[in-house]
Amino acid sequence: MEPRSRGAAPGGVSVSAVLPAGGSGERLGGATPKQFCAVQGRPLVSYAVRAMERISWISDIVVVVSPENIETMKSIIEKYGHKRVTVVEGGITRHRSIFNGLKVFAENEFSSHLLQKPEVVIIHDAVRPFVEEDTVSKVVMAAKEHGAAGAIRPLVSTVIASAADGCLDHSLERARYRASEMPQAFLFDIIYEAYQQCTDYDLDYGTECLHLALKYCKTNAKLVEGTPDLWKVTYKRDLYAAESIIKDNLSQQVCVITNVKETLAQVGFLLPESLKSQIKVEAISVSLSKNDSCLQSIISGQCYNFVCVNDKRWAIQETQELVDMLEKSNIPLLYPVVLILVHLDIPENNSFSIGMEDLTMIKKFARETKKKNILVYGLLIQYK
Amino acid sequence: MEPRSRGAAPGGVSVSAVLPAGGSGERLGGATPKQFCAVQGRPLVSYAVRAMERISWISDIVVVVSPENIETMKSIIEKYGHKRVTVVEGGITRHRSIFNGLKVFAENEFSSHLLQKPEVVIIHDAVRPFVEEDTVSKVVMAAKEHGAAGAIRPLVSTVIASAADGCLDHSLERARYRASEMPQAFLFDIIYEAYQQCTDYDLDYGTECLHLALKYCKTNAKLVEGTPDLWKVTYKRDLYAAESIIKDNLSQQVCVITNVKETLAQVGFLLPESLKSQIKVEAISVSLSKNDSCLQSIISGQCYNFVCVNDKRWAIQETQELVDMLEKSNIPLLYPVVLILVHLDIPENNSFSIGMEDLTMIKKFARETKKKNILVYGLLIQYK
Repeated sequence: MEPRSRGAAPGGVSVSAVLPAGGSGERLGGATPKQFCAVQGRPLVSYAVRAMERISWISDIVVVVSPENIETMKSIIEKYGHKRVTVVEGGITRHRSIFNGLKVFAENEFSSHLLQKPEVVIIHDAVRPFVEEDTVSKVVMAAKEHGAAGAIRPLVSTVIASAADGCLDHSLERARYRASEMPQAFLFDIIYEAYQQCTDYDLDYGTECLHLALKYCKTNAKLVEGTPDLWKVTYKRDLYAAESIIKDNLSQQVCVITNVKETLAQVGFLLPESLKSQIKVEAISVSLSKNDSCLQSIISGQCYNFVCVNDKRWAIQETQELVDMLEKSNIPLLYPVVLILVHLDIPENNSFSIGMEDLTMIKKFARETKKKNILVYGLLIQYK
Repeated sequence: MEPRSRGAAPGGVSVSAVLPAGGSGERLGGATPKQFCAVQGRPLVSYAVRAMERISWISDIVVVVSPENIETMKSIIEKYGHKRVTVVEGGITRHRSIFNGLKVFAENEFSSHLLQKPEVVIIHDAVRPFVEEDTVSKVVMAAKEHGAAGAIRPLVSTVIASAADGCLDHSLERARYRASEMPQAFLFDIIYEAYQQCTDYDLDYGTECLHLALKYCKTNAKLVEGTPDLWKVTYKRDLYAAESIIKDNLSQQVCVITNVKETLAQVGFLLPESLKSQIKVEAISVSLSKNDSCLQSIISGQCYNFVCVNDKRWAIQETQELVDMLEKSNIPLLYPVVLILVHLDIPENNSFSIGMEDLTMIKKFARETKKKNILVYGLLIQYK
């Protein structure tokens, strides 16, 4: 891992994350384990990794997958350019997989390179694609103070206990109980101790880390109210639900960038006029490469989508700078950002001057940025 | 209610249903209560009513809504042509609403027309749009035998109890517990007795009918494993999930109908040839009105979508007969059926002979059938 400047973790502790991604996804009803199913073209696990990765104070992200999926996971990491990720081979149950993930921070023999042991470790599911930094931060803070913490949600259905004859034994008073969700966080030494102490029965049949911390370390986890988006993708319908959340979270603002030439500035005026009834529009006339601070302030106003109008041939280089700036800005690229390159074909240029070479170049560029969740589209307009 | 011939109920009992639809949908985060939110253009409650209505042995369907939504509910019933439905004013809580719904079968003063008291009453949520007859049938059978029964599902998350300090008190062993879902069914006298006996506290803070039957009538409900589709629409993302289930359940077959004229038969050959790589196609050359039995066998083979090629002016009348047949067939019109009317404009006819009158007629026809969940599209092809 290369050293990098990171924001301070809540409470100044060192933090890493373990993502169990070894499930078989049998409830989803398909051949592909759910963490590898695509939502808007990207595997679910990539969203979960991204959600951790964009939190600058998380040092290492350990993804635990079953042996047969190690290569798949590695190719996902490469394809989407994930950083700070270590892939670890899982066990046959959820608890055994998490234990394997934790060992990488503590035991030399389980990893070719021992990762630095964090004070607090986050455990998050690969099939919970959306988690805000605020929630993670609260859980980490609570873990620092209480030794363990986990996100909870209200129960959606009443929970009942069945008797041996398949009849109702009793129902639980819904208000007294909560659904235990993820992320959870622990002082590393507590959860690692719990895993070392626990029985094979726990490892094979248990699922709840908070339970292990309570049972083996007498640590009562602090419960933190989570957001509705924390739910776990379990059934096929949840993949569609995940897609809807992505759509709901797309930035509803666009910035139209034109340079100062007269014809372009005119388009830069007309386009926002016609767009503004449907979407919030900012319009600026600048040369892309020279106005970092101006664009920076637009981005910090939560406007991440851009239309760049240019009469140069697609202006790939300037656009590359914009993409770099978006990446550096640490904005929520968990949700797609749209970049539309408009090539104005103005009479004084050669008409339809776009050749195969240009097309190939822009397609290649679009393919690369797509991995970063930036969708680039090209548009040719004949303008008189 | 007009008498109608109905299939026999499981166990030969008389059965009616109560659908509480009085919720405010605050978890959905919108102004519209979730039962009135549209999925594929149709309010959720209409799917739930439809799911009950297409079960022929359910006599009456009582929908309980809050006072301010009575007119909305009545207009939904009229718009989608729902039958056997009585709208009843709800109380301020779920239990009070269900109790109001039950009173219509038992107490004259609560309804202008007392409905016949059923032996078994089904209680189902308006926000659970999908339930198969098989599940309802199993729950009714179990209620007949045990006095009470309800659908259950495995828990998705571990359930935990929190202590007063917001920390974990204990977690439940997931395998021992189930989520209580709907539909539930009861011997009418048992659940009505339970509601009469229960306290104001129960009515105001309880949510679980199985609990009331146990507490006040010592009836241990039989628990019946339900299908994944039984889940309750709770959050906005669930509306998208519901849409995905509808899409998954669309018939992936199409029948191309042409009459025996040479040019039409030729199209009837070419069209299936080009379609068959994408969808399962049946092709028949018949006059629509004369081949009930032939079409009937196609419908019973789960092929519900039709392309009707005709050189008569849109052939509305023949298509009306097809629509009637689809309706009578008792097929799962919970999911949309697509009817495409192709008007072949052949040289020997007047070219482009479609006037405004025809267009108005087909649009009106399409609007009517849409209420029945049959989507009609018209297509004009010039054919030489």
